[in-house]
Amino acid sequence: MAKEKVTFEINKEKDFSNWYSEIVKKAELGDLRYNIKGFIVFQPWSVLAMEKMFDYLEEILQLKGHKPYWYPAVIPEKNFLMEKDHVKGFAPEVFWVTETGAGEKLEEKMALRPTSETAFYQMFSIWIRSYKDLPFKTYQRAQVFRYETKATKPFIRSREFYWIETHNAFDSRENALKQAKEDMETTKEFLWDQLAIPFIFFERPQWDKFPGAEFTFAADTLMPDGKIIQLPSTHIISQKFTKAFNVKFTNEKGEEEYCWTTCYGPAVSRIFAAMISIHGDNKGLIFPFNVASLQAVIVPIYNDKNKEKVLIEAEKVLNELRKNKIRSEIDLTDKTMGEKFYYWEMKGVPFRIDLGEKEIKEKKATVFRRDSGKKTIESISKLSEFILSEGKKQLKSLQEKTRKNFEQGIVSADSIEKAKKQLEKGKVVKAEFCGTSMDSAECAEKIEKELNASVRGTKFGENEKPTGKCIACGKKAEKVIYIAKSY
Amino acid sequence: MAKEKVTFEINKEKDFSNWYSEIVKKAELGDLRYNIKGFIVFQPWSVLAMEKMFDYLEEILQLKGHKPYWYPAVIPEKNFLMEKDHVKGFAPEVFWVTETGAGEKLEEKMALRPTSETAFYQMFSIWIRSYKDLPFKTYQRAQVFRYETKATKPFIRSREFYWIETHNAFDSRENALKQAKEDMETTKEFLWDQLAIPFIFFERPQWDKFPGAEFTFAADTLMPDGKIIQLPSTHIISQKFTKAFNVKFTNEKGEEEYCWTTCYGPAVSRIFAAMISIHGDNKGLIFPFNVASLQAVIVPIYNDKNKEKVLIEAEKVLNELRKNKIRSEIDLTDKTMGEKFYYWEMKGVPFRIDLGEKEIKEKKATVFRRDSGKKTIESISKLSEFILSEGKKQLKSLQEKTRKNFEQGIVSADSIEKAKKQLEKGKVVKAEFCGTSMDSAECAEKIEKELNASVRGTKFGENEKPTGKCIACGKKAEKVIYIAKSY
Repeated sequence: MAKEKVTFEINKEKDFSNWYSEIVKKAELGDLRYNIKGFIVFQPWSVLAMEKMFDYLEEILQLKGHKPYWYPAVIPEKNFLMEKDHVKGFAPEVFWVTETGAGEKLEEKMALRPTSETAFYQMFSIWIRSYKDLPFKTYQRAQVFRYETKATKPFIRSREFYWIETHNAFDSRENALKQAKEDMETTKEFLWDQLAIPFIFFERPQWDKFPGAEFTFAADTLMPDGKIIQLPSTHIISQKFTKAFNVKFTNEKGEEEYCWTTCYGPAVSRIFAAMISIHGDNKGLIFPFNVASLQAVIVPIYNDKNKEKVLIEAEKVLNELRKNKIRSEIDLTDKTMGEKFYYWEMKGVPFRIDLGEKEIKEKKATVFRRDSGKKTIESISKLSEFILSEGKKQLKSLQEKTRKNFEQGIVSADSIEKAKKQLEKGKVVKAEFCGTSMDSAECAEKIEKELNASVRGTKFGENEKPTGKCIACGKKAEKVIYIAKSY
Repeated sequence: MAKEKVTFEINKEKDFSNWYSEIVKKAELGDLRYNIKGFIVFQPWSVLAMEKMFDYLEEILQLKGHKPYWYPAVIPEKNFLMEKDHVKGFAPEVFWVTETGAGEKLEEKMALRPTSETAFYQMFSIWIRSYKDLPFKTYQRAQVFRYETKATKPFIRSREFYWIETHNAFDSRENALKQAKEDMETTKEFLWDQLAIPFIFFERPQWDKFPGAEFTFAADTLMPDGKIIQLPSTHIISQKFTKAFNVKFTNEKGEEEYCWTTCYGPAVSRIFAAMISIHGDNKGLIFPFNVASLQAVIVPIYNDKNKEKVLIEAEKVLNELRKNKIRSEIDLTDKTMGEKFYYWEMKGVPFRIDLGEKEIKEKKATVFRRDSGKKTIESISKLSEFILSEGKKQLKSLQEKTRKNFEQGIVSADSIEKAKKQLEKGKVVKAEFCGTSMDSAECAEKIEKELNASVRGTKFGENEKPTGKCIACGKKAEKVIYIAKSY
């Protein structure tokens, strides 16, 4: 057998698509060889990081009053058919459970949940009675299933993916809209504060809403190839579903009203894809410190003579790091030093600690920081302290870098031709546009056709004012919109 | 509308079945009104506790070298059919996904996983190459699906349940058997050390194995109605599956061998059922401190005059408790004091802290411990410290109580008649038996028929020696077995 290549060297900027497939394989993030097309096996290196991501998200959501539920993964056909726009949007993508055992037909087909509104709302109609029950804020951590007909790409688009879905009921439209603002804050606390992923929170145009929603808001970020990827989205469902599912409450005056509802869906496996794509470099992965599967790896440097001595000291350092809740390991494989260095660089571990006899004598260790490539000599007794404080700095410098890239990735254009040129360079285009109601759907179609890109919407919460004309039809512009190629 | 009954008072010893159904409803653990039979919605009060249980289990498993994976929830029919005993055992219980969208047939049916051997082993055959890859220890946290034909009971038997399944490959039968011992330790560290659930780890008789296994070991515990419930089980799969799935490794001599495999399946939702059943009393739930959804609840006592003052102090106490990682809340509902007291007793919160103006003046609070019913006055400044130390004592005293009950629940019998009488009194019967190989299956059938109870097996890891005759056939006894009615 040929010796496996030790280094990972693919130019991410020039060939992102190849970089992505190769790192998924090489770092053992997910295996595509499972016997069903479009389904992958998520491997420990991604699962450990995604578990951390779930922890952060759930902590934020619980602090904001969302209670956790586990709903069945199957939804009865009658629930699924209850709201007509929703059916239209999701029906083509549903997997159906129809039989049991040796082929006995079920009395009623069950959908593998593509999303769970129609499961949650059935129970909301039982549980919610009075204005005192509101707001009713819930969530579940779950995997969902969609029979994707587009080409699948691991973590980005597959037939089963992992997310959190919140479902919430309110006593007024105003309070539902407030929830969208809170979701935007949550998105910031998670994507930006923990993962250093920059994003714009868009209000989607009316022609691009979640099936059954009145408004859709979504966080978009920019991938290295200049394509936008949609991350968490929030939907103001309004009263459409609550009317279909009879979710009512008695208000303070004793009158019955239908609830207003919202949902929010951070797809953790997709966010993971964006995270590794944005931070990685030509040598492999770079994990933000807080969600790294492993935060520090100790590489003991020894020969036959001093092996025992070095390993005992390495063990001590390991215990000390773990005591300080730093996820750590010692590399005890029989690889060469060079192989070990390349391997952990490729895997994206934030800190590598090199420990040999010389270092031990001086009570010091060499610490290598993956994202900056800097090496420093630190006192062994202060390693945990150093790594915890340097971990915060790592996050800050990832934020600085990605913010700059993101800002440079957005440019203005005042004509279709200019927009086209910028899109070809991998930029997101900011442009003036006639509107985002259904009246402007035709202009959007024109753009979609001529630019092979989509209108992502208007910045949510910021009233960007246009001064000129619509880039598509030339009429007076009413909105500032963003156009981008997308995943 | 009639006023809802404030107290929960059902005699658990006399009417366990009613106690169980009522507490599931009243404490809002799970809702059975979902639109598919046999599937329930798990509600926050159980989900929060089960999440803690998963955390403990995963921590133990990771420390013992198991790596986490997320496998697809669907298994292709061809994988599923690969091992014939397994198919025979599980096929009747499988839900099949057969169509998508508007009824397009899938080329190949997919099973909703009833267990995941046939998913894991396909990948093992790709990943495992050399003895250096072994042991290969993995796990996943997942829900599984079984088309149960027996009556379902929430958390105990339903068509979808939550568990961890470990799947592991070894280079020898001996190392596989060692894993069973490690699993027994894990069971102790989890069931006993964290949840105060006593159990016996049995080696199941040959006629009662997991479909496809060579040996099955399982932890049984005793429910309040004298019926045994099976908790985590471990299976030595031997080489049956690895031959079917072609999972081979090259040994140190360079020869190819098939791997030996094991699996271990703690069903967290079922363990939750056993936990609440064993610890609860006539007033409701009692949660072991470490996995309680809420560990302490503050009940502020105020009138219109001093409300603000009391609530400010309650908030301070809450922050202090939370700072010390004690899961806490303030009860701000408009219930009466009595209603609040009964409610939190029923919900099983380990500690209730009563805080009124008088207490605040004296810088003290009244702490009520749910399991013992004892009230003490504690200094506010030392509340966290007190609760953390008292929480450990709570676990110890739950252990003492359940250990005693468990020991008293097991009695010896040397005839079918005596065994019958004991079983009727709700006891587990220890008896001498001819053997546990297939040769003794007939004796077991006789017992099953005459006693309407099952032979649970022999104590694993303890060589209990018989001295007399088989309780069923009168021949020389070779084994000491346990007979019990079961869930």
